[in-house]
Amino acid sequence: MSPTLAPDTLARLRTVSTSTLTTLLYKRGFRNVFIQGARPLKSGQRLAGPAFTLRYIPSREDLDGVEAFRDPHHPQRAAVEQIPAGSVLVMDCRGDASVASAGSILATRLQVRGAAGIVTDGGLRDAAGIARLEMPAWCAGPSAPTNLIRHHALDINAPIGCGGVPVYPGDIMVGDDDGVVCIPAHLADEVARDAVEMERFEAFVLEEVEGGATIIGLYPPTAPDTQARYQAWLARRAGR
Amino acid sequence: MSPTLAPDTLARLRTVSTSTLTTLLYKRGFRNVFIQGARPLKSGQRLAGPAFTLRYIPSREDLDGVEAFRDPHHPQRAAVEQIPAGSVLVMDCRGDASVASAGSILATRLQVRGAAGIVTDGGLRDAAGIARLEMPAWCAGPSAPTNLIRHHALDINAPIGCGGVPVYPGDIMVGDDDGVVCIPAHLADEVARDAVEMERFEAFVLEEVEGGATIIGLYPPTAPDTQARYQAWLARRAGR
Amino acid sequence: MSPTLAPDTLARLRTVSTSTLTTLLYKRGFRNVFIQGARPLKSGQRLAGPAFTLRYIPSREDLDGVEAFRDPHHPQRAAVEQIPAGSVLVMDCRGDASVASAGSILATRLQVRGAAGIVTDGGLRDAAGIARLEMPAWCAGPSAPTNLIRHHALDINAPIGCGGVPVYPGDIMVGDDDGVVCIPAHLADEVARDAVEMERFEAFVLEEVEGGATIIGLYPPTAPDTQARYQAWLARRAGR
Amino acid sequence: MSPTLAPDTLARLRTVSTSTLTTLLYKRGFRNVFIQGARPLKSGQRLAGPAFTLRYIPSREDLDGVEAFRDPHHPQRAAVEQIPAGSVLVMDCRGDASVASAGSILATRLQVRGAAGIVTDGGLRDAAGIARLEMPAWCAGPSAPTNLIRHHALDINAPIGCGGVPVYPGDIMVGDDDGVVCIPAHLADEVARDAVEMERFEAFVLEEVEGGATIIGLYPPTAPDTQARYQAWLARRAGR
Amino acid sequence: MSPTLAPDTLARLRTVSTSTLTTLLYKRGFRNVFIQGARPLKSGQRLAGPAFTLRYIPSREDLDGVEAFRDPHHPQRAAVEQIPAGSVLVMDCRGDASVASAGSILATRLQVRGAAGIVTDGGLRDAAGIARLEMPAWCAGPSAPTNLIRHHALDINAPIGCGGVPVYPGDIMVGDDDGVVCIPAHLADEVARDAVEMERFEAFVLEEVEGGATIIGLYPPTAPDTQARYQAWLARRAGR
Amino acid sequence: MSPTLAPDTLARLRTVSTSTLTTLLYKRGFRNVFIQGARPLKSGQRLAGPAFTLRYIPSREDLDGVEAFRDPHHPQRAAVEQIPAGSVLVMDCRGDASVASAGSILATRLQVRGAAGIVTDGGLRDAAGIARLEMPAWCAGPSAPTNLIRHHALDINAPIGCGGVPVYPGDIMVGDDDGVVCIPAHLADEVARDAVEMERFEAFVLEEVEGGATIIGLYPPTAPDTQARYQAWLARRAGR
Repeated sequence: MSPTLAPDTLARLRTVSTSTLTTLLYKRGFRNVFIQGARPLKSGQRLAGPAFTLRYIPSREDLDGVEAFRDPHHPQRAAVEQIPAGSVLVMDCRGDASVASAGSILATRLQVRGAAGIVTDGGLRDAAGIARLEMPAWCAGPSAPTNLIRHHALDINAPIGCGGVPVYPGDIMVGDDDGVVCIPAHLADEVARDAVEMERFEAFVLEEVEGGATIIGLYPPTAPDTQARYQAWLARRAGR
Repeated sequence: MSPTLAPDTLARLRTVSTSTLTTLLYKRGFRNVFIQGARPLKSGQRLAGPAFTLRYIPSREDLDGVEAFRDPHHPQRAAVEQIPAGSVLVMDCRGDASVASAGSILATRLQVRGAAGIVTDGGLRDAAGIARLEMPAWCAGPSAPTNLIRHHALDINAPIGCGGVPVYPGDIMVGDDDGVVCIPAHLADEVARDAVEMERFEAFVLEEVEGGATIIGLYPPTAPDTQARYQAWLARRAGR
Repeated sequence: MSPTLAPDTLARLRTVSTSTLTTLLYKRGFRNVFIQGARPLKSGQRLAGPAFTLRYIPSREDLDGVEAFRDPHHPQRAAVEQIPAGSVLVMDCRGDASVASAGSILATRLQVRGAAGIVTDGGLRDAAGIARLEMPAWCAGPSAPTNLIRHHALDINAPIGCGGVPVYPGDIMVGDDDGVVCIPAHLADEVARDAVEMERFEAFVLEEVEGGATIIGLYPPTAPDTQARYQAWLARRAGR
Repeated sequence: MSPTLAPDTLARLRTVSTSTLTTLLYKRGFRNVFIQGARPLKSGQRLAGPAFTLRYIPSREDLDGVEAFRDPHHPQRAAVEQIPAGSVLVMDCRGDASVASAGSILATRLQVRGAAGIVTDGGLRDAAGIARLEMPAWCAGPSAPTNLIRHHALDINAPIGCGGVPVYPGDIMVGDDDGVVCIPAHLADEVARDAVEMERFEAFVLEEVEGGATIIGLYPPTAPDTQARYQAWLARRAGR
Repeated sequence: MSPTLAPDTLARLRTVSTSTLTTLLYKRGFRNVFIQGARPLKSGQRLAGPAFTLRYIPSREDLDGVEAFRDPHHPQRAAVEQIPAGSVLVMDCRGDASVASAGSILATRLQVRGAAGIVTDGGLRDAAGIARLEMPAWCAGPSAPTNLIRHHALDINAPIGCGGVPVYPGDIMVGDDDGVVCIPAHLADEVARDAVEMERFEAFVLEEVEGGATIIGLYPPTAPDTQARYQAWLARRAGR
Repeated sequence: MSPTLAPDTLARLRTVSTSTLTTLLYKRGFRNVFIQGARPLKSGQRLAGPAFTLRYIPSREDLDGVEAFRDPHHPQRAAVEQIPAGSVLVMDCRGDASVASAGSILATRLQVRGAAGIVTDGGLRDAAGIARLEMPAWCAGPSAPTNLIRHHALDINAPIGCGGVPVYPGDIMVGDDDGVVCIPAHLADEVARDAVEMERFEAFVLEEVEGGATIIGLYPPTAPDTQARYQAWLARRAGR
């Protein structure tokens, strides 16, 4: 479903910020790529991987009692067992965080299976337990009640909305302390390359600003000599 | 997908109110059957028919330009051409009414094709034009912008959420001035029967109340003589 | 609980607008007297009467099944039977209109018992039926589901919040097409008097404006001759 | 501030719908031109005219007592006296409709002065009185409290946000039953021309649909013969 | 008002998670027991104790000036002085966190008096100071303004809504990092017992999952051998 | 624009809490001075300085592409270069945090230029980077997307609304862990003096409460002997 990525793309994306990526996507005409309301469970987390999706619709009393989980094909449980290593479980909870969309046992299973992370616009239960895992997670907030109270797991790996953003299976999810951006799959390689370059330039800008430079003419580099100073900075860095 | 209904069910449902139906469904354990935020475009409309669904996810700039409608298989247009006569087009717009989910040309086509009505938790454009049709419509409000700005039509006749309520294809949608209720398909026959009976009793209650009776013991009929008076009332009515 | 009103107060209040009343209360330091979100069920309704309150808290599954109404002391039903003639039933639904707070049978009983009207920050079911009554009603919108799904009726005639406004039993509720204002009981007489006078002056202003006058100096009457013209206008009117 | 419009532009815009206009603006890359939440006070209203703006910020107790209106330069009152004939008073209330942004006396003065209409994302007081005027108005709802309680009138004819949309003075506001669209001034002429043409085509489409035609290939006209039938239809219409 | 608890109930509840408790209550038909929007002021807090409630209604300018606190019977202050040791102060702020519902001096007094904790759907002021106490607190967020600006303290120990949940005095409030659950008093003993057992089983499940087991058949334990492995695990644990 | 402050005012304000300040302003009739929704990026931050404002309106596609920043007079960049040392950059984002209002490079430039801090009711991007600066910041949350997607920077140092509060240039912004209060400029000196005194009394109260005193009669000090004990406490403290 998703094109083959260049070998360095995910590694590059793990080093760049979501703010850089949203700017690069905005330059390409994409205004709505940042998952609204999905906050990291702890600081310092980084994420990059293709989306593997799960769609919830509102639950119904006769279909979503606690016994629903006894079905070995229950889509929430099946998704956890089917997600490929390196993928990100992205859940569409219609932005409803009054209940959980997963808990620490499922999150642990996801980590053991090699999933790259969890992104949901719903809640997560035993959020402190999930935060203790290596695998990172972003959600709308801790929320103890079981998903069955509000959510009926339906589709695995169909296109969804998450936090107001369209997420197609295979889109590349990148997360940091600000939140999570969804990169359309076919743009991931070029955006990853540009992002590394843009952050290199911003490292130069930050040094200049810390040294007292005005941002006018520097950021963006409209002053004629900014590029020259940047090239010199690059040369000095290369020389180290 | 939906069980065969008893011959009188839809006709019965067109005569009873959504408030009666939500009470009968509550008695059976269903608390979440009323499409929140879907208001009728005009007063006096009645609706009863099986759901035929359309799911929207958030749109994406490279997929949802105005040229998207040139695709003869575009799901919004396909849904309008495929909906069976007597069915209700129910649209999942994630409760976002900042744009339309359909307009008067599509609504007219739906009427010509024999659709029973439109129910959406998004907006409708040229709402005054739609209100002039015979076919009734319920929505979150008039909204002029084209759906492409926010919505990408994706699935036809998959289970959806609409106004916070689970809607499975074939569920029976019933609408009146209060709004729209979604009856799980397998319950439609019995609920229709009970609703007619309950409204007959409420007609008696209303007459008693208009005549000065207290509601205590009458509604619900816990006073011993209420049933007797009701039977007499029924007999008088039958005698007319 | 409420002071005795002057004999003409309610009659006066039925002739003046809620916008006049909110201004007069603002002059006395009251900023929060307009029931937010309570809209009239039909246009042209007028209301003035003391508040008789009903408080709902969230419902609980083991306490609020349909059989709850079989209790002859159920507070919703008791309120309807106890409200004094001329009073207004004001309901605190915590602004939740996803379900009803009353329906047409109870509203009919209220009318028969002489209640002045209904004000709620929740929904009303069979709203079209209630709109056909003589007795006016204001609510957050039509909503079919029974109140038991979300609301547990608890207190009769305790102080409540309604639409974000404090309502003490005996406060005077006044309603028109804009909505409903709650006048603290001890201010009703003087506010009613001032309102009649203020609207008399505004009738003069409107005539002047329709005749082409600027509002500067006229409204408010800061220009020296405005008062003189007003006195002349009053004299002409008295002469008719 | 606004370019001179072609002579027919406003007349054309009064005949076309806001849904047509939002589509034409979307084709030009504008996604956010429909004033969210501004509903017409009555049905059947039409509006077209340049924006004359008024900006409110939150009020402050020491600056916004009732005596504030005694200032002959109070921006709300000054705006009403300065607005050019044919212009639309557009008010930025930060979407807060808990109080009014104007009332019937000011609206009457606006009508006498020849203003084309009122558009606000706040409330209007004595809304029924305003609805009786010839001059149309769109707002977030009737709301009785005086604007001073929440709003401090500040800027006249500065760029504002209204209902989430940027409105620059001189932009062309067009309103109908669906709501109000803001056309960037420099696009008004071409959009007006295109809109008339697009609605002519849609009249043809509607006739075809009413006659039983499928929308596939017709709307948009991707089928080869659609254009031919349209030309014939135009010829027939011209012949009448 | 509340039944006598079994001696170990509160101790047990302090060791189990709110996610376990919401699941056990859902099994008994309770869907709405998790206080929405009440977050812990710091991580690692645990709470278990009976509810002692305080109800606020919207404040009124003539009743809720700063001098209101001079009344020795002011319900907020009285509640702090009357709450029994071991009880939890639960406040109904109608979900309005624009102002505080208490501050650090009152919280300190509560701790000195032996209260078990604070739960509010409003704000807390000097939240950092409260977080430094031993006694835990959950709220909708830090908020500096005094409660008088929006809240009028009214009832002590009446049934309330808090975070959308019904809370009856004596209900057992249990809190952890996810939030707070309200257990109907008569269910506390059995739920506490079941929770300990359920968490014992989940400790086994987590070990299995960490060891690489699939969740299908394990959680819930539908596979025939899961129970056997669990019994063996229990025996090993008992043998330690 | 702002009156000259007494020499100690800002230093005093840095030592007192926003909860103290909101109470003192409430005593003077100000109910709306706390910036709703602006949370500190890290704990322990303190802020006091005059407001230097930036107003955003909704962006428009033809005016707010990424190239907009190439304009050396772009108001966001100009504001960063013009803000006087010691001032606080206060941004009006209409409460929309779906995008950023500034990022770490601009924040670093602000720190280098001596700005006292950042207050915004929108988002901040690279929030972790901003949190690592000395200069404190309060915002509605981390948000990666560039401000151009939703915001058009317009006015520098005009009166604005921020978090629902009126902010006039020169008003004194004070921030702590609870959030940010805006003190009308002309009141800053007297409020600063009173705040120091009020917090001295509250330190005494806290000691008494920690020692077991009831709050009745102590807080507020209505008991006759409270003042005497306080004077003795002051004397002891002075003697240290």
